[in-house]
Amino acid sequence: MAEMKLPTRAEDYNEWYNQVVLRAELADYAPVRGCMIIRPYGWALWENITLALDTRFKATGHVNAAFPLLIPKSFIEKEKSHVAGFSPELAVVTIGGGEELEEPLVIRPTSETIIGYFYAKWIQSYRDLPVLINQWNSVVRWELRTKLFLRTLEFFWQEGHTAHATEEEAEAETRQMLEIYTDFAEKEAAVPVIPGRKSEAERFAGAERTYAIEAMMGDGKALQAATSHHLGQNFAKAFEIRYLDKNGTLQHCWTTSWGLSTRFVGAIIMVHGDDQGLILPPRLAPFQVVIVPIFKSDEEKSAVMEAVRKIRGELTASQIRVKVDEREGVSPGFKFNDWEMRGVPLRIELGPKDVAKGSVVLARRDRPGKEGKSFVAQQGLTAAVAKMLEEIQKSLHDRALAFREANTREPKDYGEFKAAVEKGFALAYWCGNGECEARIKEETKATMRCIPLEQPWGPGKCILCGQAAREKGIFARAY
Amino acid sequence: MAEMKLPTRAEDYNEWYNQVVLRAELADYAPVRGCMIIRPYGWALWENITLALDTRFKATGHVNAAFPLLIPKSFIEKEKSHVAGFSPELAVVTIGGGEELEEPLVIRPTSETIIGYFYAKWIQSYRDLPVLINQWNSVVRWELRTKLFLRTLEFFWQEGHTAHATEEEAEAETRQMLEIYTDFAEKEAAVPVIPGRKSEAERFAGAERTYAIEAMMGDGKALQAATSHHLGQNFAKAFEIRYLDKNGTLQHCWTTSWGLSTRFVGAIIMVHGDDQGLILPPRLAPFQVVIVPIFKSDEEKSAVMEAVRKIRGELTASQIRVKVDEREGVSPGFKFNDWEMRGVPLRIELGPKDVAKGSVVLARRDRPGKEGKSFVAQQGLTAAVAKMLEEIQKSLHDRALAFREANTREPKDYGEFKAAVEKGFALAYWCGNGECEARIKEETKATMRCIPLEQPWGPGKCILCGQAAREKGIFARAY
Repeated sequence: MAEMKLPTRAEDYNEWYNQVVLRAELADYAPVRGCMIIRPYGWALWENITLALDTRFKATGHVNAAFPLLIPKSFIEKEKSHVAGFSPELAVVTIGGGEELEEPLVIRPTSETIIGYFYAKWIQSYRDLPVLINQWNSVVRWELRTKLFLRTLEFFWQEGHTAHATEEEAEAETRQMLEIYTDFAEKEAAVPVIPGRKSEAERFAGAERTYAIEAMMGDGKALQAATSHHLGQNFAKAFEIRYLDKNGTLQHCWTTSWGLSTRFVGAIIMVHGDDQGLILPPRLAPFQVVIVPIFKSDEEKSAVMEAVRKIRGELTASQIRVKVDEREGVSPGFKFNDWEMRGVPLRIELGPKDVAKGSVVLARRDRPGKEGKSFVAQQGLTAAVAKMLEEIQKSLHDRALAFREANTREPKDYGEFKAAVEKGFALAYWCGNGECEARIKEETKATMRCIPLEQPWGPGKCILCGQAAREKGIFARAY
Repeated sequence: MAEMKLPTRAEDYNEWYNQVVLRAELADYAPVRGCMIIRPYGWALWENITLALDTRFKATGHVNAAFPLLIPKSFIEKEKSHVAGFSPELAVVTIGGGEELEEPLVIRPTSETIIGYFYAKWIQSYRDLPVLINQWNSVVRWELRTKLFLRTLEFFWQEGHTAHATEEEAEAETRQMLEIYTDFAEKEAAVPVIPGRKSEAERFAGAERTYAIEAMMGDGKALQAATSHHLGQNFAKAFEIRYLDKNGTLQHCWTTSWGLSTRFVGAIIMVHGDDQGLILPPRLAPFQVVIVPIFKSDEEKSAVMEAVRKIRGELTASQIRVKVDEREGVSPGFKFNDWEMRGVPLRIELGPKDVAKGSVVLARRDRPGKEGKSFVAQQGLTAAVAKMLEEIQKSLHDRALAFREANTREPKDYGEFKAAVEKGFALAYWCGNGECEARIKEETKATMRCIPLEQPWGPGKCILCGQAAREKGIFARAY
C-alpha cells in the first residue's frame, strides 16, 4: 500500500489523470493495446450516467434496441464521406469458425450503416415515421494514441438513430438531443458546457451538420462531451430509406444520429478533480456518502457500529447511496485518504466521542481540511446530508463555471489569440473559411471547438484574416 | 398488412416460432449470417429481464464491470479443455487500422480468460476475497445452425465471474446463483424450471461442475435456460489467480461463472405462446395493458379519449405499464389481433357505450374469446387490473407446470423411455456412465438435461444397462 505520492495537476497533468483513474479504481489497462477494462467503481459511475440519460431519452419518446456488432465491410463503403472517415480505423474479422470468410466483417465503429439497412426495410409509409431508436453498446475504432476513457480502441456509448419525414423535423430532433446532453451535463454531472455547431472540418463523416457540447478541462483544454448529427438525406440515399408520403409520393427520409460515450467519465475527472484525486458530483457518484467508523476496543466498536447501522439505514431509506468502510487492518486516516482519492462527495466520521455526544463529523470532499468539516447532530442527520449533497452539486458546477470564465479570453488580435489558447479558450470571430481554421490549427494547435448557438455579439472581423465574420467561435487545444 | 395466417403450433412448431418472433417484432434477421437485431419491443422485454436479474445480483453483493470485447488468441489457449471447447467457434480479428496484427485477437466467446488475467493482477490477499463481478454484454460464437434468440452468432447475456478462498465458498456461490435463476424464472417469467447438475459430457468447457435450470417448451423439448459453473482451480491455475492466506501461504483461488442469455426470450415465447402468437408474463411484459379506444364520429372520439386518458393516468400512477393504441387507419379488430400477436397480457376496450355505462371491457390474453372477457367498472379499475395481472402471472405458471407434468414420464423400461422422449421428458435412473448416455443420445436423440437436485426417490437401476444407479436424470430432446 506504500504508493508514490500522486503528482499534482501543476506538476504533471497527464500523469495526475492516469494515476487518478488507476488509483480510484475506475479503470485498468487491458492486455490488448489501447483497450481498457472499466472496474466496478467506474462502471457504477457509468451506470448512473446511463440511467440519467436513458430516462431523458425515454421521456422524449425514444426506445432502445440492439443492432449487430458485426457489419459487412461493403456496408461501410456505401456512404462516401463515411467510408473515408472510418476505414482507416476498422477492426476486421477475416476468420470465423476456423474458416476464411468470403466477405470480411468489421466490428462496428458506429452503426449508421447497419441501422440504415434496417430502416430501409421497416419504413414504408409516413405512418411509420418518426423512428426514434437508441442503443447502448460498445464500438471499436483502431486509434493510434490512446488514453484511459478519453480515447480507447473499444469504448462504451449510446448511439441514437432517428428517421423523419422532413428536414425540419430532423433538425428539431438534432437540436433537442443537444439540449438533452446540455441539461444532463449541467444538472447531473455539474459540468458546464457550451452547446454549438461544428465547422465543416470537424463534422462527423457523413453528416450535414454536427452539433456538440464542449467543456473546459482543469488544464484549460477543451473536450467534446457529446455530439448530435443532422445527417440530411445522405444515409437515406445510400441505403434507400424511403417512405410514401400522404400523396402517395416516394420520398427519402431525413436522419439523425447522436452519442455520448465513456469519454464523459474523463470529463468528470478533469473538470472536478483536485490534487487529492477524484471529486464526483453527488448525483452521479456510486457512493454519495462514506461512513468511516472509528474505534479501538470491542466495546467501542459495538457502540459505534450500532450508531453506524442506524445512520446507514436512515440514509438508505431516503435513497442516499451509502458505503460503510468496515475494512480491518487499515487505519481511519488511510480510509479518509482512500475515499478522498475515490471522490466520494461526503464522509461521515463516527467514533466513541461522537456516539456520546449524539453527533457525527461531516467532511465535504470539495473543501479539503478543516474548512470542509462540521459537527452535525445524529438527530436530523439525513436531512442535513441531503441538503449538503445539493450544496456540493451546486458548488462543483459554480466552481467549474468560474474556472472556465476565468480562462476564456476574447482576444482583440491574433497575438492575444495565441496567448489565450496557451491556457484556455479563445472566443473569437471567424470568417468561416476552412483555410483560416487550418492555419490557426497549424500555428497554435488550437482547433475550432464549436460556434456557440448563442451569438449575442453581432458580426465582426475574422481574428486571422480580418475579413467579415458573422459569428464567433470557441478555439482551444483539445483532447 | 395482408399476411399469411400464422401456422398453428401443431402444424409446424418451428415455423410458428419464427413467425411469432418476426410478427411480434421481437427481432429480425441481420444481413450477417446467424446474427439478429433485437427490435425495440424485444429489447424492452430483455431490459425487464435484466432489471429483475440485476436487482437480485446486487442484493447478493455482486457488482458490475466491463471487460474488453477483444481477447488475445493466446489467452483462450491457456486452459486446455476451454480451448478445446471454444476454438472451433471463434471469430478472429486479423486486421486493425489497415494492418495485419502481430497476434490475432478473438471476439470474446465468454470471458473467463480475460477476467482471469485481471483477477490474477487484482487479488493479492485473503482480504481481497471474495471478488463478485458480473457483466452485461454480448459475445460471439460461430454457430453453424442458428435460430432467432435460441442460437445466434452474437448473443446478449450476463456473465458473472467470482473468485473465492475456498472450494466450499465457490460451491455455495455456484448454488446460490442457480437458486437466483430458479427464482427469477419461476416468479418473473412464470417459467417452471428444474434445477440440476449436468453430466460430464454436458459440462462447460473448463468447469468442474455445471448446474443448470431446464425448462420444457410447448413442443415437449427441453431448453437450458441458465447455467452456473463451479470452475474449481482450473482457471486459477491457468492464470495464476492466487492469494496469501491468513498464515501467509500462497493459495490458488476457487472460481465460478454463471450466465443467462437472450435465449431466455426464446423460452418465454415457447413456454407461454399459443396459436394466436406471443403471451408475455405480466411482470416482464413491456406493456402490461393495451388500451384500444373505439369510436366512429369526432364526438364519440372526444368522449372516449377523455376516459382513456384518465384510465391511462391512473394505471401509470400505479406503476402499471400501459400502451394506448391511437393508430389511425386500422380497425379495432386489427388492433386486437395485433396486440394478441404481441402478447400483451391484458386489453382494455373502450367505446361510447362503455363511456355511457362507466365501464370497460377487459380481455385476458391467456384466455382467448368470450371466456377471457369481462365488463369492469371504471371506478376501481386500477385495483381490478392489478389483481388480474397477478392472476394471469400465476395462471401462466400453473398452466406451464401442468403441461410439463403431463409430458414427463417415469419409464419402467427402455421401450417406455423411447416413447417418452418422443413427446416430452423422461425422468429415469442413470448409472452415471458416459457410454450409456452416449448410446441413449445416439438411439433416441435425447440428452441428459440434468440430474435434479432433489432426489426423493432413492437408488435404482439404470434405464439402459440395468446397473446400479444412485440418481434419476431428466432426459429429453433439446434446443
